[in-house]
This record gives sequence, structure tokens and C-alpha cells, in this order.
Amino acid sequence: MTIKLAIDCMGGDHGVSVTVPAAISFLSSHGDAEVVLVGLRDSIEPQLKKLHALDHPRVRVVTATEVITMDDPVEVALRKKKDSSMRVAVTQVKEGLADACISAGNTGALMAVSRYVLKTLEGIERPAIATTIPNEQGWGTTVLDLGANADCEPEHLLQFARMAEAMVAVVDHKERPSVGLLNIGEEVIKGNDVVKRAGELLRASELNFYGNVEGNDIFKGTTDIVVCDGFVGNVALKSSEGLAKMIGNMIKEEFTRSWFTRLLAGLAMPVLKRLSRRLDPARYNGASLLGLRGLVVKSHGSADAHAFEWAIKRGYDAARNGVIARTIQAFANKSGNSTPATGPQSGAQDSSPSPHAA
Amino acid sequence: MTIKLAIDCMGGDHGVSVTVPAAISFLSSHGDAEVVLVGLRDSIEPQLKKLHALDHPRVRVVTATEVITMDDPVEVALRKKKDSSMRVAVTQVKEGLADACISAGNTGALMAVSRYVLKTLEGIERPAIATTIPNEQGWGTTVLDLGANADCEPEHLLQFARMAEAMVAVVDHKERPSVGLLNIGEEVIKGNDVVKRAGELLRASELNFYGNVEGNDIFKGTTDIVVCDGFVGNVALKSSEGLAKMIGNMIKEEFTRSWFTRLLAGLAMPVLKRLSRRLDPARYNGASLLGLRGLVVKSHGSADAHAFEWAIKRGYDAARNGVIARTIQAFANKSGNSTPATGPQSGAQDSSPSPHAA
Repeated sequence: MTIKLAIDCMGGDHGVSVTVPAAISFLSSHGDAEVVLVGLRDSIEPQLKKLHALDHPRVRVVTATEVITMDDPVEVALRKKKDSSMRVAVTQVKEGLADACISAGNTGALMAVSRYVLKTLEGIERPAIATTIPNEQGWGTTVLDLGANADCEPEHLLQFARMAEAMVAVVDHKERPSVGLLNIGEEVIKGNDVVKRAGELLRASELNFYGNVEGNDIFKGTTDIVVCDGFVGNVALKSSEGLAKMIGNMIKEEFTRSWFTRLLAGLAMPVLKRLSRRLDPARYNGASLLGLRGLVVKSHGSADAHAFEWAIKRGYDAARNGVIARTIQAFANKSGNSTPATGPQSGAQDSSPSPHAA
Repeated sequence: MTIKLAIDCMGGDHGVSVTVPAAISFLSSHGDAEVVLVGLRDSIEPQLKKLHALDHPRVRVVTATEVITMDDPVEVALRKKKDSSMRVAVTQVKEGLADACISAGNTGALMAVSRYVLKTLEGIERPAIATTIPNEQGWGTTVLDLGANADCEPEHLLQFARMAEAMVAVVDHKERPSVGLLNIGEEVIKGNDVVKRAGELLRASELNFYGNVEGNDIFKGTTDIVVCDGFVGNVALKSSEGLAKMIGNMIKEEFTRSWFTRLLAGLAMPVLKRLSRRLDPARYNGASLLGLRGLVVKSHGSADAHAFEWAIKRGYDAARNGVIARTIQAFANKSGNSTPATGPQSGAQDSSPSPHAA
């Protein structure tokens, strides 16, 4: 099976100068992949020419005449720029012309456009943004939601867990990935009301629920999946990014302080390189928009070609492993989830497979 | 003026073997300090003897017959163990026999006992936990709340900002410290409802309000103070701790991988030592319980003597610089804050000094 990947070439801080080379490089290591390059033809073709890929048999260029900028409000993305590279790329997925879409465009716009064009899967009220964060186990912890839903009901957190479970099961080949509910560990307060009720739903569900986890468990790798609302997830992710950057800067500062430390840095290069490879944020680039009737991956806006290629890989892996089919199956077994969230009384607590599936 | 510090000697993972040496070491570098060592006399005195400090002129031992364990529920701390070292130490502050109390005991118990014994200051509905987090500016960002209040009203966030402002103003000698409101930056969702309303209150207040900040701004040092609810603050803090630990472990692993990397580590020792000093979590040990009618500092339970000494220093600095008086003054100027939170309509929006102060 060929995997077709629609690339929003105009998105991100660097546009075609990053997205096109990343796509062509990806093709060279993935013989079963095709790319659909979406955007301004006048911008894309010179890049292809530079890469001697104008006639690449696995490249198709689809024209879009507009570009959504990083500052464009959601309304503009949705109602004004109807021929944007982002929207045309997502539409490729909707129309079955691509198996996944990858964009480095602005998150709010991408989520809104994807939701509008693709719609959510049966039983899912809200899509969520999930990413993989490196942990001490050597593999990654999948965390969601990272900002699509600032306020959540307990039922949404259960749905997020189920969506992530479907993805991790097929992409990471873990049949029963464990799920942790992000909470605070102090005895006096075991979390806010929403989290307490989400804990009840998760405990009663068919999922492999570990229980509450704390912020540090994300990096310990206590569970395969960590579920939280979009506000908390966004703050946890950005705090961690901020700290990693600060530590990286400090390491650089200390090793460039004098001729002696520079010499040391030279000698220690293999060690420092291994370290930076292990912590390389590029390797973890690419957040999945889950819960939609199609695969969409969001790359960091500032990604370089190397990092953007990882985001393409994420879309490829999700398509190749049938994340959507698995998600549909996971929710089809849960009759309760197609009803609106009604708190702990909801049918979602029923963990046995049901014949009257959605 | 002598600063008297009540030490809960039995708290934390290591009890007297950490708290007593830390207290004696602190005294040697602070000639104007006295310590009140609270706990089981049979445990404290052998430690003092070992340190040749049994007759130290600036040490007073106060007996408490009970110990609150890390697992004791709040109810036990409050209602059963009325002669606990924690409670007796906090009571020293209440009775004016000490200027601040330092404990490495369990956070929930310490907050409950402190609140019960000391009560909150006029105009403050809820105490909060604040700590200083290292940032790229070389100084620290004061973040609160870190877990005392999982659910907050907008008015509480305003009060937290005011409490932190009073502390930072006198301890860090910054007359108008800047205040950031922790939020998520994606365009589509500018935070949840509580944060939006808190932003309105802060903008209308007398504080030096910068606006919204994101998780990474904590480490950038964008503002002197970052305000958030206790759930978000706790997750941000623990995520960061988890990441720092993971990176530290990776650095160790990479430098102990072979005889060559071990040799490099030996050569690079001065650099690695400087790095670890800059990132030393011990230096940032000690979270302040703000909003109470007395100073209480919570040390990490796992702190060693070096780290616990930093927590003592935090209590000392707060007492020496008159944090309580400054906090009272900050709230006395705000008539609106002694009324219950009623949302954006509250009198707290009135930023002009009022004659009918609390």
C-alpha cells in the first residue's frame, strides 16, 4: 500500500524552504510514500528544481492560492481564506486523495480548519492534540490534550484516553497501553472536581487505567499515556520546553567560557552529540490531532527540515498503522460515548462491548 | 534585631539527621539568628551532642511528643496529633516566640496546621504556596500557587499576585515586581474562563501587571512573578523537576559510558560542577506559605542538610525583610479585597487607595 501525504508547504516560519526539502528527503527513505505538495506553485517549483525533483514520480503539486499566516485569527482561516494551502491540504485527506496531512501552520487555525473540513469521529465530542515526550524509559510518553480544549468535562478526558490508546496501540505496537490521569499528589487536595470525576470514569472503563500520575511521571514514563485538559497540558509542555532550552543554553555557556572549556567541549564532542541526539526536540516534533475523520499532524512552526521530516514520519506511521480504523473500532465498542457527557452517570462507564454500537 | 527560627526537626524523609545539622550550620553563618529546635528531645539532643552544640547560646530545644508522618492524612495532623513537632513549631510563630517556622513535613498537613493555628491575614481568603524557580536572567521567577488550591476563583489569583508582590518587593528588593498570568498561547483558545476573568481583575489592579505568560516564560524570566491556580502550578513544577532529573541522569549516563568518557568527565569536572551549581535544586529549596499571620516555609521532604539550610535561609530572609508587614500593608490599601469574591464586579477592581481600608 502506498501512503499519500499531503504537505501544507506554506505553513510555519520558513514555508517552502523547509517543507519541500523535508518532503523530498522523506521520500528517499520511504519508498512506499507519495507526497502531495500543496501551496503556491511559484514557490514550490523553484524548490523542487533546486532539489532536482521537478519530475519526481512520487511528487504531486496541488495549487492553493492563499496562505494562512501565524497571526491570522481562526475566523480568517475558516471564513476568508478558503483556498489556503492548509485548507486544501486537509481537504486532500477529506477527499481520500491523501492518507494524512502535515502542516507547520498556526495551531488554532489548523485545528479549526481540520475540524470543519473533516468533522469528528462518531462518539467523539472534541478533538485533542497529542504528542510524544521523551522519558527515562527510552521510549516516549504520549500526552494529551495540549491546548485544543482549555475547559474539559470528565467525559472528554475519558474520550482523550480512548483516542490516545487507539493510536499508541497501533503505532507503538502496545496492545494495552497504560493510561495515567494527570493530577497533583499532595494529600490535602487530590485534584479538582473534573479530575476526580474523570478518575471515576477511567476506573470504570475498559482502558488499562493506572490511576493518578503527577507532572514528573511524564518524564519517568510511569504510564504510556498521560491525560489532562488542554490548559494543564499546554503549560506542562511549554514549561518543559522552556526548562530544556535554559539547560541547553547553560551547557553551551559553560563550555564556551574559556579556551580550556572550548578545548574540553571539542574533546567531549562525541558525548555532547549523543546527549543532544537523545534530547533532540526535532525527534519529537509532530503533534497529532486526534478524534477527526482523517489524520492531521501539526509540526512546530519553527521546525527546520530535519524536524519537519519527523512530523511527516508521524503522519506516515499513523496512516500506515491504521490509527483511524482502530479509533473507530475503540469507540464503536463503547455505546455510551456517543451520548453527550452527563457526568459519572453516563453510559460510558459501561465497559463491556455493546451490540448497539454507534 | 535577632531573627528567631522555629525548626520542625522531625519532618521530612530524614528528620533530625538533616534538620539539626542544617540549623547549626545556618547559625554559624548568621550571627543574628537563633533557632528553636522542636521535636522529640531524645532525638534532637544526640544530634546536638554530635555537633558539640548542646550548649549553643543561640539554640533552644522545645519538646514535642508526636511526629506527623509523610502519610498522615490532614485530619490526623489537625485533630489527633496535637502535640506534633510541626504544630508546636508553628505555634511558636503564633505566640511570637519565633519569627518564622521551617518544616520538611508533609505539605497538606503543614498547610492545614498553619492555616488552623495562624489564620489568614485580613483580606486574604486562601493562603498559597510560592517558590522561586531559576530562570535565564540569572535570578528567580516566583511562582504561585503550587498546590494549595486546586480550584480557584479569579479573585484568588489576584490575591495571590498581591501576596507574591509583597514578598518579592521586600525580599528581592524590587519595588514594582512584574506579574504574569499563566495562560496558553494558542490563538483559538486564550485560556479558560477563570483565567480570562483573572486577567481583567489584574489589569484593573494597582499591580505591575505584564499580561499573559506561557509555561516557557517561567524559565525565560519574562516576569518576576507568575500566578496560576494550584493544579496548574503543581503540574508545571513537577513536570520541570521530572525533566531536570531526566536530563541530569542522561548527562551522568553519557559521561560514565566508557573509560574515555569517564576521563573526559574528570577533565570537565570544573565545568560540570559549575553547571550543577547553577541548576542545583537545593538552592531553590523552600516554598513559602503566603497569606498567613505568620511565616511558614516548606522544605522538600527529601532535602539534605545543605538543601534544608536554604529553606531556613528563606524563612530568615522573609522575617528579616518584614514580609508580613508588607503584605498587611498591600491588602490594607485595597478595600475591595476583604469582601468575598464576586467576580469582575468586585470592588477589587478599584485600584485607588481607599480610606475605608480593612
